[in-house]
Amino acid sequence: MAAPSRKPPTSLSRFLDGDFWEVKEKLREYIEGNELFNLRFDLPLSDYRDVTRERALYLFRLPEIQEQFDEQASSKQNFTNRSLALGELCSATDLSVGIKSGVMAWLFGGVITNLGSEEHIKRWFVPLKELKFTGMFAMSERGHGSNVKGILTQAHYDQDTKQFIINTPCLDAEKIYIGNALQGNYAAVFAQVYVKGQCKGPHCFIVPVRDEQGQLLPGITITDMGLKEGLNGVDNGLVAFDNVRIPRENLLNRFADVSLEGEYVTKITNDNARFNAMLGTMLAPRLALCFQALAATKVGLEIAVKYSLRRRQFGPSEGPEELIMNYQTHQLRLMPCLAMCLGLTFAVRHAGSLLDDALCNQRDLVNERGLQALAAGLKAFCTWESVKTLQTCRESVGGMGYMEENRLPSLKRDADVFVTFEGDNMVMLQQVAKELLTQYSKQFESSRVAAMLSSMTGSFMSSVKTSKFAVTLAPVSSMTFIRKALAFKEDKLLRSLASRLFDKVSTKLEPPFTAWNQCLHHSTTLAWCYIHKVTLEQYMAAVDRCPEERDKEIMMKFCKLYAVHLLYEDRAWFLENNYITAAMAKDLRQEYIKLCAVTREHALEVVEAFRHPSNCVHAPIAGIPSSRAPWAYYPDSDMELTPPQSKL
Amino acid sequence: MAAPSRKPPTSLSRFLDGDFWEVKEKLREYIEGNELFNLRFDLPLSDYRDVTRERALYLFRLPEIQEQFDEQASSKQNFTNRSLALGELCSATDLSVGIKSGVMAWLFGGVITNLGSEEHIKRWFVPLKELKFTGMFAMSERGHGSNVKGILTQAHYDQDTKQFIINTPCLDAEKIYIGNALQGNYAAVFAQVYVKGQCKGPHCFIVPVRDEQGQLLPGITITDMGLKEGLNGVDNGLVAFDNVRIPRENLLNRFADVSLEGEYVTKITNDNARFNAMLGTMLAPRLALCFQALAATKVGLEIAVKYSLRRRQFGPSEGPEELIMNYQTHQLRLMPCLAMCLGLTFAVRHAGSLLDDALCNQRDLVNERGLQALAAGLKAFCTWESVKTLQTCRESVGGMGYMEENRLPSLKRDADVFVTFEGDNMVMLQQVAKELLTQYSKQFESSRVAAMLSSMTGSFMSSVKTSKFAVTLAPVSSMTFIRKALAFKEDKLLRSLASRLFDKVSTKLEPPFTAWNQCLHHSTTLAWCYIHKVTLEQYMAAVDRCPEERDKEIMMKFCKLYAVHLLYEDRAWFLENNYITAAMAKDLRQEYIKLCAVTREHALEVVEAFRHPSNCVHAPIAGIPSSRAPWAYYPDSDMELTPPQSKL
Ligand SMILES: Cc1cc2nc3c(=O)[nH]c(=O)nc-3n(C[C@H](O)[C@H](O)[C@H](O)COP(=O)(O)OP(=O)(O)OC[C@H]3O[C@@H](n4cnc5c(N)ncnc54)[C@H](O)[C@@H]3O)c2cc1C
Ligand SMILES: Cc1cc2nc3c(=O)[nH]c(=O)nc-3n(C[C@H](O)[C@H](O)[C@H](O)COP(=O)(O)OP(=O)(O)OC[C@H]3O[C@@H](n4cnc5c(N)ncnc54)[C@H](O)[C@@H]3O)c2cc1C
Repeated sequence: MAAPSRKPPTSLSRFLDGDFWEVKEKLREYIEGNELFNLRFDLPLSDYRDVTRERALYLFRLPEIQEQFDEQASSKQNFTNRSLALGELCSATDLSVGIKSGVMAWLFGGVITNLGSEEHIKRWFVPLKELKFTGMFAMSERGHGSNVKGILTQAHYDQDTKQFIINTPCLDAEKIYIGNALQGNYAAVFAQVYVKGQCKGPHCFIVPVRDEQGQLLPGITITDMGLKEGLNGVDNGLVAFDNVRIPRENLLNRFADVSLEGEYVTKITNDNARFNAMLGTMLAPRLALCFQALAATKVGLEIAVKYSLRRRQFGPSEGPEELIMNYQTHQLRLMPCLAMCLGLTFAVRHAGSLLDDALCNQRDLVNERGLQALAAGLKAFCTWESVKTLQTCRESVGGMGYMEENRLPSLKRDADVFVTFEGDNMVMLQQVAKELLTQYSKQFESSRVAAMLSSMTGSFMSSVKTSKFAVTLAPVSSMTFIRKALAFKEDKLLRSLASRLFDKVSTKLEPPFTAWNQCLHHSTTLAWCYIHKVTLEQYMAAVDRCPEERDKEIMMKFCKLYAVHLLYEDRAWFLENNYITAAMAKDLRQEYIKLCAVTREHALEVVEAFRHPSNCVHAPIAGIPSSRAPWAYYPDSDMELTPPQSKL
Repeated sequence: MAAPSRKPPTSLSRFLDGDFWEVKEKLREYIEGNELFNLRFDLPLSDYRDVTRERALYLFRLPEIQEQFDEQASSKQNFTNRSLALGELCSATDLSVGIKSGVMAWLFGGVITNLGSEEHIKRWFVPLKELKFTGMFAMSERGHGSNVKGILTQAHYDQDTKQFIINTPCLDAEKIYIGNALQGNYAAVFAQVYVKGQCKGPHCFIVPVRDEQGQLLPGITITDMGLKEGLNGVDNGLVAFDNVRIPRENLLNRFADVSLEGEYVTKITNDNARFNAMLGTMLAPRLALCFQALAATKVGLEIAVKYSLRRRQFGPSEGPEELIMNYQTHQLRLMPCLAMCLGLTFAVRHAGSLLDDALCNQRDLVNERGLQALAAGLKAFCTWESVKTLQTCRESVGGMGYMEENRLPSLKRDADVFVTFEGDNMVMLQQVAKELLTQYSKQFESSRVAAMLSSMTGSFMSSVKTSKFAVTLAPVSSMTFIRKALAFKEDKLLRSLASRLFDKVSTKLEPPFTAWNQCLHHSTTLAWCYIHKVTLEQYMAAVDRCPEERDKEIMMKFCKLYAVHLLYEDRAWFLENNYITAAMAKDLRQEYIKLCAVTREHALEVVEAFRHPSNCVHAPIAGIPSSRAPWAYYPDSDMELTPPQSKL
């Protein structure tokens, strides 16, 4: 079938697409007008799973994606950011497709390339690329979701047969929520390794689950988890192992191995450190999830913005009714979301580059703790923002947003779980805070605790000084001011958190776990501040690199809205800390409202620069005709008939 | 089938249930263990619609509900609050049932009792009670949703035949989203009346749509709107009329009539006032919707709280893992939601009493503008809070919240549209603000405008005085302080809004529509403040009436949390306006965090006092066994097996 012709990309769309705009455009051409990708919302569970698989496999076969497999296998420069760009695109078609592909190839594949050897790559990654089989990623258990260190699945080494025996000792040890569980052939299974009766902590194994004909192998039980709120194209299930024997070589042995003779060998002797090294493999999937969340957000915003520029409701006594986009509240609802979503795109891309750099230079991800924390924070920010934005989009188009055919409901449902999986957001924020504390304490070479204490005593004096300094330099809504304000807040919260924890643990002798728990509000506030700040910095840096002057001006307005909105929403803290005055807070509100009106003028251009294929947008209210919901189609803004009484 | 025995109600549950606790208990007994009310999430659209109808009709036949019909027909004292209580209960079973019943009987029926004559009640309300037919409520059109005054459906009076001709002149005039459209027999249709070629504005007509056999009548076209995000048990459709003739008597003529001779007769000569009088009929359904939203919220909270008191994750190095409910962030997520939901229950019940009082004393609802505004504001508050709370519940139980069988997904989907229908929330807030402005301007007997001006000049002085007064009297987290603070804010925002509008319209000569639009942020902030304040007042008053000392103490803690949370969230404004100091804001934070921990101790008792039948709760994670998701069942908090390595 010939794809409908698409308009050529604009300088703005190329800028928003980033370095890989060309390959993204190619993929869009495959999708535009391709019936396989036309959305359906009324499929029974099994059909929806089948079509999701079919769509994912179609994408895998494309030369651009095949190339990506090769680049991943060889860690070619910039393969992460290229992969993220492709992932964003796959997700825009249907989030189930994005997630299913992610599980089938990238999560399973990523474990192999990150934790496995050359041999493992040959045995499991190359055939994966050749679509000989698909994999799953089996980490979570009934009893342990966020706390993966506590998993109970066991892998006993049997020296006689040189095999590992993978076993589920109790219900709580069953692997749960496992994606592709109803269809996948191999599973990357995390289990506690036991060698000579001694537990060595969690390690990852490749366990065959189904043969090539899809027949379940002995000792393995799979339970279909059925209907979920969303992502129903993905088959999630429980997986249990009844003493399943696998060859010794199926242990992914980059960080630790068990020798033929049953000796446990590892370069990382600390159990915690080794486990964290293995978790390093979550870095890329977390960034991928950011882009998947952004993909959903962008489609949602395109639908809401386009309809809002067509729908009229109420109005002055004379003339046509008013476009709903012209209501101040409407601008305040949608524009900050759009500004945020652009900024996050740049920030995640930046994190992707850092990862590319680390991988290309063969640095161990375990040492990239700053990057780990950044990814965790961006994961929380992008996914929560996505849930919020999609809800706003739904509400801002009124009853039309409630109709399945307008796509917003399914976007909402699918993206909802993003805040939970691949690292629950509340846990992610704590990871950010912990990393900031660690970095902070590293400043003090000798006795950390003493140093922390001494630094504490002076901290509030210095913060007051910074405060005055900041206040006098630049106007409150300037980028300079806001950037400094965030840095000030981060610094102050970090010092005070360190000091509170120290006081609780060292002086009051509270158990560290209790002390930490009592500071959770504090530490999550710190994490937010940090991640807001990094995003702002990367937003500004990206806009600064924008090649076309006109595009740059537009982007600057959105960047400014992001910044002003941030500070406006958080002004209570800055007022409390005497960093801004009441008059400044009021200026901020004016500026915020003004910037929403200013950016509204560019909203259409920006959402069009997302260049979504029309079958991805799907929604009749965004101007895509539909035979299934002709009543929702809004071809243009003119009412058909407006008799005098319509403005009573 | 014998219903499982239920524990007897407690003093707390009776208090939370309110005056009608006995009838609610009876209804719960009908539902508990009744298979008809066992939830299913995998039904095809048509089956789901059928079972919803069946459930609704089952409820209608119950003696307690039959009695309710009689009370409504005769406007018996307190019938509103009794009806709201029953509606809350029906909705807790399944929101589709609540909404479908609402449309079939209360919306359609309410139009008849409110806008019709004795004769109309006999012809259409009594048979409705006898289940001879069901109705629909056809107000919204493709072109006009929020702006109902602008509807385009026409009702021309044909003097020759003494009939009205109901017609849909264009696509935009098609009635849209109409509930029960695929099954209902009669529709209450809003249309512009034309008499002798002159348009007299919108009026309501009873139009037969299907005969007793369910056969569509000539001239009527119905289009199924298909799948929605939620409420799929309700059949929504488009309804179009091709010159459908109905008897003159089918005009509901309480406020206006057309005589046999074709004279238009009305006591209310002003078109706007007459239309508003008709819209008075929305008052009860709006309050009903508040309770439906609260029903969903309460079920959601019961599920989240119960699971959070069973699920353990992470923990200190020694001993069992920690209950997730013990994490500070978890308390901060769930407890304010629970506190809010209790307060809203009391506030809406208060509004119900006001309505009962008005109806019982035969006061025209059109004159109850304050009550109209209160209902509009509470509708916005309850429904937005419901969406927020259910999302929080979903997230706070992790991946389990994403599983259909745990009920949270469907609660979220169903309740989502509440923010849109029966009056879009953003429009509701404006209605509140407009009413406050009207009341404000009424203070000034003579020339309103001049008076407004003169009052403006002094307003900021007086507000500064109030400010100082408030600051010095009571501690920041006391109820007295917070109540005064909200009143202060309301007063200040109201005066400044009046002044801004006056300045724009009278001095700068801006068109009123533009002026209003430019103040939307201001006016919606005012509306929120007012509605928060009213809720606080009613919360306090209700708690004060609590008969048991122990219950009262518990309720007092939640009430305090509501108040402190409110002020804490809004502290920026109070800091900006020098109403509180930075030190007070910090105290507020401490108090807020503390109150979340304090109320957590009572959370289980409170959610159990909701007394939901177990088939309404349904969720295995809340301790309700399920054959369809045994893996989600959490009978108690003890892990099955906790080998040493689980706390690595
Ligand atoms: C659709 C779906 C697909 C999935 N796919 C896979 C897959 O393919 N492979 C796989 O291995 N896993 C998968 N998962 C599992 C997923 O990774 C887990 O759901 C996630 O890690 C969270 O764990 P949990 O659900 O057990 O929640 P829990 O860890 O039990 O958390 C419950 C709640 O407690 C809070 N909480 C927990 N600890 C703390 C703390 N220390 N401080 C504050 N709050 C806390 C959390 O914020 C959360 O709100 C999937 C899940 C879903 C829903
Ligand atoms: C599931 C469902 C069931 C329904 N059942 C019925 C029924 O049985 N009978 C019936 O008659 N109707 C029914 N409705 C219609 C419902 O009442 C309308 O959807 C509602 O009134 C909103 O109108 P709209 O959808 O046209 O949104 P619009 O009025 O077009 O509003 C769209 C957006 O613009 C914003 N907006 C509009 N005006 C303003 C303004 N002045 N200032 C600021 N923002 C503004 C709104 O906030 C909203 O976000 C139903 C709707 C749904 C979805």
